[in-house]
Formats: sequence, structure tokens, C-alpha cells
Amino acid sequence: MLAAAAAEEDAELSAEELRDAWPLLDLEERSDGLRVLPREDAEEFFIGLSPADQASLLVHFRAGQRRQWMRLLEPDDVADVIQTAGTEHRGMLLGLLDAPTKKEVLALMAYEEDEAGGLMSTRYARLRPQMTADEAISYLRQQARHKVETIYYAYVVDHDQLLLGVVSFRDLFAADPRTIVAEVMETDVIRVSDEMDQETVSRIFADNDLTVVPVVDKDGKMKGIVTVDDIVDVVQEEATEDAQKFGGLEALDLPYLQSTRADMIKKRARWLVLLLVGEMLTTTAMGYFEDQLKVATVLALFVPLIVSSGGNSGSQASTLVIRAMALGEVRGADWWIVLRREVFSGVALGLLLGGVAMIRVLIWGSWGSYGEHFVLVALVIGFSVLGCVLSGTVAGAMLPFLLRKLGADPASASAPFVATLVDVTGILIYFGVANLILRGIML
Amino acid sequence: MLAAAAAEEDAELSAEELRDAWPLLDLEERSDGLRVLPREDAEEFFIGLSPADQASLLVHFRAGQRRQWMRLLEPDDVADVIQTAGTEHRGMLLGLLDAPTKKEVLALMAYEEDEAGGLMSTRYARLRPQMTADEAISYLRQQARHKVETIYYAYVVDHDQLLLGVVSFRDLFAADPRTIVAEVMETDVIRVSDEMDQETVSRIFADNDLTVVPVVDKDGKMKGIVTVDDIVDVVQEEATEDAQKFGGLEALDLPYLQSTRADMIKKRARWLVLLLVGEMLTTTAMGYFEDQLKVATVLALFVPLIVSSGGNSGSQASTLVIRAMALGEVRGADWWIVLRREVFSGVALGLLLGGVAMIRVLIWGSWGSYGEHFVLVALVIGFSVLGCVLSGTVAGAMLPFLLRKLGADPASASAPFVATLVDVTGILIYFGVANLILRGIML
Repeated sequence: MLAAAAAEEDAELSAEELRDAWPLLDLEERSDGLRVLPREDAEEFFIGLSPADQASLLVHFRAGQRRQWMRLLEPDDVADVIQTAGTEHRGMLLGLLDAPTKKEVLALMAYEEDEAGGLMSTRYARLRPQMTADEAISYLRQQARHKVETIYYAYVVDHDQLLLGVVSFRDLFAADPRTIVAEVMETDVIRVSDEMDQETVSRIFADNDLTVVPVVDKDGKMKGIVTVDDIVDVVQEEATEDAQKFGGLEALDLPYLQSTRADMIKKRARWLVLLLVGEMLTTTAMGYFEDQLKVATVLALFVPLIVSSGGNSGSQASTLVIRAMALGEVRGADWWIVLRREVFSGVALGLLLGGVAMIRVLIWGSWGSYGEHFVLVALVIGFSVLGCVLSGTVAGAMLPFLLRKLGADPASASAPFVATLVDVTGILIYFGVANLILRGIML
Repeated sequence: MLAAAAAEEDAELSAEELRDAWPLLDLEERSDGLRVLPREDAEEFFIGLSPADQASLLVHFRAGQRRQWMRLLEPDDVADVIQTAGTEHRGMLLGLLDAPTKKEVLALMAYEEDEAGGLMSTRYARLRPQMTADEAISYLRQQARHKVETIYYAYVVDHDQLLLGVVSFRDLFAADPRTIVAEVMETDVIRVSDEMDQETVSRIFADNDLTVVPVVDKDGKMKGIVTVDDIVDVVQEEATEDAQKFGGLEALDLPYLQSTRADMIKKRARWLVLLLVGEMLTTTAMGYFEDQLKVATVLALFVPLIVSSGGNSGSQASTLVIRAMALGEVRGADWWIVLRREVFSGVALGLLLGGVAMIRVLIWGSWGSYGEHFVLVALVIGFSVLGCVLSGTVAGAMLPFLLRKLGADPASASAPFVATLVDVTGILIYFGVANLILRGIML
């Protein structure tokens, strides 16, 4: 008896322990983990999982168990799960739903995942304009027992579901019980359209300090609400996507440890091959200067130094602009302001770095490296670094604007992309400057 | 009369127009913009500004006006404003507050800006455990009229301010009016400590799908609440900081267009100079191979191609790891799993890129470039690219772990940092491979 009790205690797992181990567990172990948790904890844990995890578990569960897990999820979560699970499981998963929920889920699935309609919950609290505050409160009390996402903001709609206004529970509560809702409600409601991109939605939340926003269709009919906790996920998701693009790969759709090796390599290889092909232009460019390199091999030694100075400053400039665009601090029309700033920065940074590089060459040169003409070499290096830093800074700052203009994501102006672009330019600048300064002396 | 009315209409500015123009306006214009807005809109607009903007406006306003603007802000916002304004305005700004608010603000200012205490609001709704649901509701109704951040979650504390539990308004509302709060409340409250880092706080929000969390001190005494809308700002802020560090510069504290040129250049120059000095090692490294370059100048042509392949793959790997760390998907202890994955990725990507590079050299070589030994040159290039991609991938993936171990921010494993590191290694790999394959033939 005692041994059995002890064993049971051993087997007992807290939700926290399961959460910690989760990324390392396979599907079988995850499903076992859920089984040994106390029922209520397991349900809460399941609800908190990502749609991808929920989908793979639902597919993994025995047929008889699936319905009870599926029932835990809100319609908008179900829609996410089904979209994540892929078409082969779609029919089976939809089959687990009762008729009204299925209808709701199908309506939600008509939206793209990254637009307001794909993000919203359809379970919002609604009121009629002619109700008194007192009636409204008891009506909300009723709705509080059903599953509405929040009762703290209630949306006032007419019989056609047209959105007339919003009223906070708090105002309703503070109002005279006999006032009618139409008098308490705020009619100037910040709303989003159901087809609005999720990044724009998150900007609207931030600009207006919202905790919830109503979603309407093009006729102004109320469709659902998006709450700020979903926006946190959106912001994280968009930041991750941008970071991955900026790092020079396609955005992974899954967490790092959950992506398959094949998928990960595919998403990385495409850009790497493109960049490699681009970088081959440096070989072509240097090929034009092979004769100069033969007579002045010392020039070869500085190639990585010079081109990297352009890449590094370009990566800084593009980061700044991409991030400022993502936060809405800089818009497409601001390119001219940014260009002016960055030309200034490029010159200032170029003078500084060019100076440092020149001093380095002068010191080593005076110790006997780099031959008799080391002073001229130092001049070449100094001016080349200035040119590379300036062109890198300007290219890095303008590329996001150009990409945006072309309808691409500004975040694709990645550090490796900018570096590759600037490498080719850098070689042309370097040998151009060398030809100007050294012609007739070393070349 | 009519002309005056028309002029007035002309001068009328909507809050939206002001928001659009805001980044481009100077202080004087901003202050004018606020003056011409309808009073209520202006106040709302001011409340929605960033602490930096609020601070500079408050300092700019005439002495007689300051108090009325300051009064609009909650204590936690006031604390942010005063911290942003700098020590020289501290006394003046604190002087605008009434005694109790001042005490509250000073308590908040004792916290770092980026810890839970610096993020929290002290205006939360509180209840006693022995109240009935009915009493609690009317008590909350009272608190709703004062400024509490939210009445939708109320915190149950004892006479020592020890946090006993939390009760949602919704549950209180659904409960029998005579039940006591202690019976309705949830005692297993997820809480954060007042000194917890804001990044950790935001992780806890995400993991537990919270909309609000109580902040307690080390004795378990209730200090305040953090709401999810503050977390959206934290997430954006942290993503921006990480992106800027990854782009190879120090995090700016202000939006791009608001940073002064001097400050911006300082924050960019420090890293650029460091990277330049690091990159000088490539010159030193290549110096060792100057003799080989003299006899086989063709090798110089491929230097940028080869070293950049390492930099690009390194940048990908570090992005993936940094972002996964920021999201809590990968922890310090997972380095071994990541290493295994990345060695695999590095080999696979290296074989692919090495193959592509080799084919390029073979094709151009068979057209007469690169001399008679072009097949051997192709082999050198292929193996060097493989080596650089593998070492770049592994270095990029492990550097964030190393930095974290050393107590630095993993995001400092920036694209330029990794590229510089890998450039030096890349040159050693390249000439090492060349010496192995070409010795006695071309070298």
C-alpha cells in the first residue's frame, strides 16, 4: 500500500515540470505527460499549448479521446488548430465539432491566419442600445456564464449587427441604473476591418493603448473582437519573422527545436545559395584587377578588411531602418529624411574608420611591412574605407525602402544581403581608388 | 465673422493628423499642436505619448501650465517621465505633484525601469477575504470611480498587504451574493517579484496567457500590478533592442528619427571601430600567405567569396539561436542539442554551397580562367567553402550561448561580429586547404 502510494507520488508530475521538459519530449511522451497530470491541470495545459502542438496531439490521441480535448478549445483556437494540422486531417478534426461550432469555425477559417479575421474571437458580449444600464448588467451577467471572451467591454449592435458603439462594464456599473445604454456608450469606436493585416492591427493597439478592438466587415457589421493578449503573440511572431529574415533566412514557421532538419536546411539553403551566387560577382570584379594584384600583391591583404567595413556599416543602417519601419516610426515617404541623415552618418563614420585603418597601415608600414610606398598604400586604404562605409550606410538604409516600394518585406534587407551587395561595390571602390593613387608608382 | 470662423476651421487639427505629423515636428510645433486640439483630445493625446515626449513637453511648457498636464498622468507614468527627463528636471517635476502622489512616485522610482517594479501600476483593486460577494461588488464599484487600473481582477490582501488570492470580477458576479470572497478567490496565484527583469515578466505572461499579474516583494506583500498592454510595449522594446544589437550597434534608447546625430554616431562608431580592429586580423592572417599570393594570385580572387560564405551561414545560425533564446524555446542547458543540430546543418549546407562554388570555378576554368590547374583550384574552393560554412554555422550557433554564460546579452552575437570572427578563421581555412592541395604544384 505504502509503496504504491509512493510510486504514485513519484509519477506525479506538475504542470510546471511538464512545461519545462516539453520542447524535448516526443509526441508519445507528451501525450503520456498530459495523462499523468491531474485532469484539470491537463486541460489547462492543453489549452495553453501552441496550435501546432495541439494539432499534433489531437491527431495522435486515440479516436475516442479526441472529442473531449477538442471541446476544450474556443472556435478561433479550433480554426488555428485545423489550419495548422494540414488538409489531410481537416475532415477528421471538423468531424469532432457539433454543428453550430463547426459553422463558426468554418467562417473563421475563411480568413487568412495573419489578418484580423483570423485572429479574432467571435465570442464577444453584445448589447442593444435601448437597454437600461441595469438590464445591460444582468444581461452581461448571463453572458458571463457562457463563453464570452470578455464581459468587460460590450459591443452595442443593432438588429443587422451594425456596430453602434462600445460600453465598458466599468462605465455601465458607475452609471445610473435607469440610463439607457445608448447614452453611456462611446460611439467613436476605434475598429479594425476583418481583412486588415495583423501587423497593422498590432500598430493600432499600440497607438491607441487598447486592450480589445472590435472587428467589422466592409459593411460595418460586427464580426468579432481581438484582445491584447493575442497581440502579444502577434508582436513576438512578427519580431521573430523579421529577425529571421534579417539574419538571412526564410522565416521558420515552427520553433527552432521543433523544425525538422530538412525544413530548416531548405529555408537556409535558398538564401545562402543566392548570396553565394551574388558573391561570385566579387570574384569577377577582382578578376578585372588580377594584373594589378600580380604587381602589387600587398593590395590583396586588405580586401577583407575593406569590404567588411562596408558590410558592417550597411548592416547597422538597415537594422535601424527596418526596425523603425516595423514600429511605424518611419514611413515610406520619409526616405528622403533618412537618406540625408545616413549620408551624414556615413561620412562621419567613414572618416573615423578610414582614419583608424590608415593609422594601422602607417604604423605597420613604418615597421617595414607593405613596402616602400606604404604611405600611399595607407592613403588608398583610408579613402577606400571611407568610400565603403559611406556606400554601405546609404545602401543599407535605402534598401528597405526599395524593397517596400517593390512590395517585398523591408526586413529582407538582411545583413548578409547588404554585405554581399556592398562587397561587390567595395571591390570596385578599392581598386578604383588604388588606380587613382598608385598608377605609375606601384601599378 | 465668417472669415474668422473659416480661419478657425482651418486651424482645426484632428488628433490623427497631429499623430501623423508628430515625428517631424519640433518641440514648439508639438506644443502648438496640442494647444489647437480640442481640450479633451489634447489630454488623451498627451497621455498616449511616450515618456520621452511627455518629459520634453513638460519641461517646455510654461511654469503655470505644467501642473495641469502632469495631473493627467498615472503615478507609474509620472515615474517614467521623471526618469526620462534626467536629474536636472527632477526636482521641478516632482514639485508639480501633491504629497501622496509624490510619495507613490518616489517609491516607484526606486525600481529600475526594466524590472517588474518599474513597470507596475500601484492602482489596483483590492478586497478583504471576509467580504461577501455582494459587499465586494459594491466596494469595487466605489473603487471603479477612483483611478484603479482595472476592477476586473481584484487582489485579496490581509492587513499586512500579504497577497492571499485573486478574484475575477466575472466570478464574483456569477457567485451567490452571500458567498465570501475567500471562497471564490483563486489562491494559486501566478505572481512576479518586484525585482524581476521585464523580459522574464513578459515570458510569464506569454506562458500563462495572462492579462494582468500581481507584483509582490520578497515578503509576499502586494506592491502593484502589471497589465498585458504594458507587456506589448516591453516585447516591442526588447525586440528592437535585440534587433539593434544583432545589427551590430548599441541599442538606441530613442526612436530613430528622434535620436540626435551625435548620439546615433557614437552608438554605431564604437562597434564599428571594434569590428574594424578585429577585421585587421584578416590582413595579418593574409600577410602570412603573401608569398603564396605572389605565385598564385588567382587565389586572391576567391577570398571575399569564401569568407562571406562563412559569415552568411554564421549570421543565420546566430539569428536562429538568439531568437529562440529570446522566446524561451532554447535555454542555456540546450547548447549540446543545438550544437548537434548545427553541425549537421553546417555539413549539409557546406556540401551544397561548396558544390555550387566548385561547379562555378570548373565552368569558368574550362573557359580559360584560373590557369591550367583550374580543377585543383576548384577543389580548393569547394573544400574551403565547406570548411567556412561549417565553422561559421557552429560559431554562430555557439556564440550566443558563450555570451550568455559570460553574463552578456546573447543578441550581441551580431551578424557583423560573427562575420568578423569567421572572416579570420575563413582565411586560415582557405590557405590551409590551398597549401594541402596545391603544394608542389602551384605553390
